[in-house]
Amino acid sequence: MNDKLLMRTALELAEKGRGFTSPNPMVGALVVKDGNIVGRGYHKAAGLAHAEVNAINDAGEKAVGADLYVTLEPCNHQGRTPPCTQKILQAGIKRVFVAVDDPNPDVKGGGNKYLEANGVTVISGICESEAKKLNEIFIKYTKTKLPFVILKCASTLDGRIASRTGDARWVSGEESREFVHQIRHQVDGIMVGIKTVISDDPSLTTRLKHGKGLDPVRIILDTRLSIPENAKLLSLNSKSKTIIVTSTDTNADYDKKERILKDKGAGILKIPLKNGLIDLGYLMYQLGNMGITSLLIEGGSRVIASALKAGIVDKIMFFYAPKILGGDDGFPICRGPGPEFMNQSKFVKDLNIRRFGEDIMIEGYIDNSSSNPQTF
Amino acid sequence: MNDKLLMRTALELAEKGRGFTSPNPMVGALVVKDGNIVGRGYHKAAGLAHAEVNAINDAGEKAVGADLYVTLEPCNHQGRTPPCTQKILQAGIKRVFVAVDDPNPDVKGGGNKYLEANGVTVISGICESEAKKLNEIFIKYTKTKLPFVILKCASTLDGRIASRTGDARWVSGEESREFVHQIRHQVDGIMVGIKTVISDDPSLTTRLKHGKGLDPVRIILDTRLSIPENAKLLSLNSKSKTIIVTSTDTNADYDKKERILKDKGAGILKIPLKNGLIDLGYLMYQLGNMGITSLLIEGGSRVIASALKAGIVDKIMFFYAPKILGGDDGFPICRGPGPEFMNQSKFVKDLNIRRFGEDIMIEGYIDNSSSNPQTF
Repeated sequence: MNDKLLMRTALELAEKGRGFTSPNPMVGALVVKDGNIVGRGYHKAAGLAHAEVNAINDAGEKAVGADLYVTLEPCNHQGRTPPCTQKILQAGIKRVFVAVDDPNPDVKGGGNKYLEANGVTVISGICESEAKKLNEIFIKYTKTKLPFVILKCASTLDGRIASRTGDARWVSGEESREFVHQIRHQVDGIMVGIKTVISDDPSLTTRLKHGKGLDPVRIILDTRLSIPENAKLLSLNSKSKTIIVTSTDTNADYDKKERILKDKGAGILKIPLKNGLIDLGYLMYQLGNMGITSLLIEGGSRVIASALKAGIVDKIMFFYAPKILGGDDGFPICRGPGPEFMNQSKFVKDLNIRRFGEDIMIEGYIDNSSSNPQTF
Repeated sequence: MNDKLLMRTALELAEKGRGFTSPNPMVGALVVKDGNIVGRGYHKAAGLAHAEVNAINDAGEKAVGADLYVTLEPCNHQGRTPPCTQKILQAGIKRVFVAVDDPNPDVKGGGNKYLEANGVTVISGICESEAKKLNEIFIKYTKTKLPFVILKCASTLDGRIASRTGDARWVSGEESREFVHQIRHQVDGIMVGIKTVISDDPSLTTRLKHGKGLDPVRIILDTRLSIPENAKLLSLNSKSKTIIVTSTDTNADYDKKERILKDKGAGILKIPLKNGLIDLGYLMYQLGNMGITSLLIEGGSRVIASALKAGIVDKIMFFYAPKILGGDDGFPICRGPGPEFMNQSKFVKDLNIRRFGEDIMIEGYIDNSSSNPQTF
């Protein structure tokens, strides 16, 4: 087996941690001796052992003189667990193959350099792009302290997310909806606008077909604190909180509603308005401060358009169902004023197409560089 | 080589006639002896020899005792050329493998039956679905005398075909537009609404990158005969006609305009209105009578929605460019009233995805059976 095949095996191991490692990255590691894999490990969940430690422990004495393949540069600092570099040196590993360097500004280069200074050969950059994609959330958050934002919508082929009566059950098929629950499991937060809460009364929890998923923190954009007191979101049996994001405006009615919502266990986050709407750039900064490394935006139309305009979206996941609504009175994907010219669109890079049942999902990355993202 | 591989080779030969055979089908044929292909032929253009004749002539004396693979049941009637069944018998072919039976109600079964009655073994149904798809236009027109209708549009990922200022140059990329010109070359007619003519002043001709293409007949829906006299469509150097479809209403102004348009070489086709719009079902009937076996509809939004509602669309080709316009004031894919509920959408079957440069094209077939198509 060559280096790339071995690293891909390590990447597959890393994948097993998906949804459980935040705020840590997913990491996989292999101990390889004489061409044979003699140890395997991955980071199972935040607070548990790192991948390197698991792989070296799995290899036992065979680790002496062996190679280590690891999908992210080994840590060189004391966190919740001791530094992996120590473990690697103690185990007698001779060469370390790394997919991607640690993006953490405090760590970058540290692990690799320390190992090299101690006589270990380090080869970095094996399957780098796959490894970067695997940990796109961790990399963005580590570099910026802002959540990695995924924008999801499900529409007809003519771009309608609901009929004129608001009927959206269902646009996409069962397989698509099941996949969205997997994404909910993987992200730290999920965000919708108050209109979606009022019209659909969603619970925004993770409901996996197999196994137990983690609920993301539920974030509701509600400028005027108009969430119904009997909304499902306010009386869920969930380990995650519901946070109502509202304006910094205040009056007696707002104060009373705020107390009611807090009594029901909801959090209230006050964010200044910008052009009459929640300042999404500033909200992302606050969510980042709260440790939310990733956010799934599920609509509706106004929130989707505002998020794109604010330049906060990293990735889109647009599901298209094999149907055409056929009119312009249904709910559009984006609501609000659009630009004058086609070339003022938001451009989407690195498109990837997936099928879920009869649906087609287009995912890609928003190029925010060519536009004027909202700053704060 | 097995039967399917041989038939696929014949289907590839048939493809070479694409765009030149209308109103005839594309047909390919192979003469196979002792496992070797000894003759190849395809139908090059309407009026020229049939595929079977070309393949048998190519095989020469080797055709005696050989097998014939042909993508469509051989004809048994005297048309512009003598019946192929005669040629097959005279050549001494022993077995005939057929992909799909002739859909022509006057012919169906005739060729195969005649051959069998004369001692030739006929095996039918090899690669039938591919052969049906290849000749979907011919099959529909032969059965119904109505054109096979392809609906094309190019939009952003959020379903906008132009910005609020009407800017649509360009939504899709060069590769997509080049492919659309290939489709124009293949169809007998192309149709747009008068608003598209007024806003874009298109020529609707076929402009291929390599080779010379055939221009489809240009059909303009123009209820009030409001086409500008200086529209490009009225002064083209093209072998195909421009036909203005208007209502049966008449007044002095209309009569005057009609004379002007006729003087410029345009045809005028008067069709009764239905709910204030050209009755598209009746128009298809008239176009079918005129020998138009296939029609490409290229917009705009109102024509797209009306065509879907009228139940005349067979196939869609929706191009999505990797961009998001981001507002709801741009031009939608469909304009007009939509249904109350999502399950009243038009459903699209047999989806296929293709990439053209950075664009994604979704093609599929409209299921008109579940709706109430406009009848006439």
